[in-house]
Amino acid sequence: MDFEKLFRDQLTELKEEGNYRIFAEMERRCGAFPKADNYGPDGKREVTVWCSNDYLGMGQHPDVVRAMVETAEACGTGAGGTRNISGTVHQHVELERELADLHGKEAALLFSSGYVSNWAALSTLGSRLPGAVILSDSLNHASMIEGIRHSRAEKVIWKHNDPEDLNRRLAAIPEGRPKIVAFESVYSMDGDIAPIAEICDVADAHGAMTYIDEVHAVGMYGPRGGGVAEELGLMDRITLIEGTLGKAFGTFGGYITGSAALCDFIRSFASGFIFTTALPPAVAAAACTSVKHLKRSQLERARQRRQVALLRRLLDEKGIPHMPNPSHIIPVMIGDPVKCRMISDMLMDDWGIYVQPINYPTVPKGLERLRITPGPLHSDDDIAYLVEALNSLWQRCAIARAVA
Amino acid sequence: MDFEKLFRDQLTELKEEGNYRIFAEMERRCGAFPKADNYGPDGKREVTVWCSNDYLGMGQHPDVVRAMVETAEACGTGAGGTRNISGTVHQHVELERELADLHGKEAALLFSSGYVSNWAALSTLGSRLPGAVILSDSLNHASMIEGIRHSRAEKVIWKHNDPEDLNRRLAAIPEGRPKIVAFESVYSMDGDIAPIAEICDVADAHGAMTYIDEVHAVGMYGPRGGGVAEELGLMDRITLIEGTLGKAFGTFGGYITGSAALCDFIRSFASGFIFTTALPPAVAAAACTSVKHLKRSQLERARQRRQVALLRRLLDEKGIPHMPNPSHIIPVMIGDPVKCRMISDMLMDDWGIYVQPINYPTVPKGLERLRITPGPLHSDDDIAYLVEALNSLWQRCAIARAVA
Ligand SMILES: Cc1ncc(COP(=O)(O)O)c(C=O)c1O
Ligand SMILES: Cc1ncc(COP(=O)(O)O)c(C=O)c1O
Repeated sequence: MDFEKLFRDQLTELKEEGNYRIFAEMERRCGAFPKADNYGPDGKREVTVWCSNDYLGMGQHPDVVRAMVETAEACGTGAGGTRNISGTVHQHVELERELADLHGKEAALLFSSGYVSNWAALSTLGSRLPGAVILSDSLNHASMIEGIRHSRAEKVIWKHNDPEDLNRRLAAIPEGRPKIVAFESVYSMDGDIAPIAEICDVADAHGAMTYIDEVHAVGMYGPRGGGVAEELGLMDRITLIEGTLGKAFGTFGGYITGSAALCDFIRSFASGFIFTTALPPAVAAAACTSVKHLKRSQLERARQRRQVALLRRLLDEKGIPHMPNPSHIIPVMIGDPVKCRMISDMLMDDWGIYVQPINYPTVPKGLERLRITPGPLHSDDDIAYLVEALNSLWQRCAIARAVA
Repeated sequence: MDFEKLFRDQLTELKEEGNYRIFAEMERRCGAFPKADNYGPDGKREVTVWCSNDYLGMGQHPDVVRAMVETAEACGTGAGGTRNISGTVHQHVELERELADLHGKEAALLFSSGYVSNWAALSTLGSRLPGAVILSDSLNHASMIEGIRHSRAEKVIWKHNDPEDLNRRLAAIPEGRPKIVAFESVYSMDGDIAPIAEICDVADAHGAMTYIDEVHAVGMYGPRGGGVAEELGLMDRITLIEGTLGKAFGTFGGYITGSAALCDFIRSFASGFIFTTALPPAVAAAACTSVKHLKRSQLERARQRRQVALLRRLLDEKGIPHMPNPSHIIPVMIGDPVKCRMISDMLMDDWGIYVQPINYPTVPKGLERLRITPGPLHSDDDIAYLVEALNSLWQRCAIARAVA
């Protein structure tokens, strides 16, 4: 069996479609973000990063860096075991307490990543609640889809952000079966936000539990960074709130929060929680510091909002089309993988601007885009320069303008 | 639907069986390992850790700690994105190069953890190679089992460490189908080691690819820490070598190594690789330093072997039964979850010795045990004291002795 050929053939197909991915190699510099070095064939060169999920620049916040440094010096670089076998450290316990408090829940549980938290929690709920049906928003993230798939529970997909469709589908399920409504708050690629209250109303009417992914919202929405559900005063209506420490909190790892029994249940039965090394104490300490900081400070959130609004306004002035949405994510649609990569390459090469082309499988084929994430550390000049670059490319490449 | 009751009922069942897990809360102290602080109801207290997977104490090695500290100070605390979207940093690229070299392969690919590397690699191979059959050793780790399950490929379980059984099962599969033989080198709970050469012979005879998990061997076996396959000169006979950075390397993360096409294939198609935040630069840098160190230094491996042999000899002298095996893992069988927890509690409370009880689901019910992992930093006195403690408990609790 020629395995090499099997691998190469599928890669060739990707390349022919224009969907083969080339990773930009970066070097972050503490204090300089959103500037960073990009490694090219001729060595490294400073660029401005416009596609980071370190949304608030917390990955270089002095207190957060200090927590990682001091904990590494005090406790070393690893936990040394699974949570059950010598790997639970004081820093995990503290961080779980902090996260439970952030979301107003009894308990929290850490995972290796947001991906693993979704995968492990949904696969455990779906497989261990007899007869469970998981009702999944049609645009849910890969980690939720794979968790549901892995559970082998019955899955019902409802129309994206459509509580009426959800209601019809819930009504069709026999009463005695446990029902789990799984959705996100901020959808990563379109930046739209779920109608959380309406979804909770529908779920309540059918006795369903609610599962929300606030990965792109924690740290950024709500007066303490508890996410969109906090901003809307809805945290107590959600059974399980899932989040990440790898985006606005600037570190690494994922978590769920909920009742003590729910977290203990996942803790006790989820393979993806049990059979894996725990997060390093230094990572947990850094994350904890970041969560604490964003509970108190409004600065980063306010400044991010200002810069997002400014970029949108300047794009509108130049007629550069971007998807309207109420979040911090600005999708500039291109609709073709080859063109998308070309524009991204020209931005990098000619302008020192890094915006990764987003293609399949992250978005459906035909919906290729640039996904721009302005943060509090992008200056007004950075924003003006980005718009100038886009405007010039729009002229050169004859890309459609928005009608004013 | 009373979800709380559903959760609590299953937890009650666990408790009644004696399989409910209580995590010991630890605080590691750099420079003091294997001593660490244990948080109890009356505050913290120093104990000796005998169940860590930081097998060589690399989690507190000054060079490894320095790499984490300096990289956190230079680059911050997170990668800020998935590998594709701004998250590939220079430290990942360097570490992947180092790991490919460690195993004599063309390429390597990093994952959030060893669990995710197994899960993602096997689920991708199984689902994307049309008609694939995965032949899985009956004692494979949960992460491999879940990866295979997730792939929905046909799965054939072969008798643990039995190449003849594997041969029979391979012979029964039609020739044209891609076959993947998946197994471990050192089995974590029994400490036995696979007959790698014989398994490769059988796989070759049937044109199957070989997939080995060297999670409990990397860093510790082979002249450069490449694992058991390196020690036996068999690395080039294995198609894919999987490992972790969270055990002997003392940090966090997982990886695969193999041909350039194989790694590119997994990189391009594995959901668990694509849709998740990349490892923090500081974690990658620490891991890279650890891998480099253990490529050159024999000290840690030699001293670990000495301490493992010493503990085995002293246990034999006292007739305390432990499972014979050629590895660094010393399983002391108890065979009952309640007794196992009781002995572990007495060791902690009365002797300041921390050995976590290993119960279901980590081992099958009835095979509960203490799993002891001596390392280079356990002193001869530590070992003598542990044996004294066990001997005293064996007397007090009337546990069976081994016949000399
Ligand atoms: C909606 C959503 N959920 C979960 C995740 C996974 O979180 P993490 O990056 O911490 O694995 C991501 C992206 O990475 C995401 O976009
Ligand atoms: C055999 C085996 N493979 C894989 C893993 C997972 O590695 P990691 O801890 O890096 O997730 C473990 C244990 O944790 C293991 O024992």
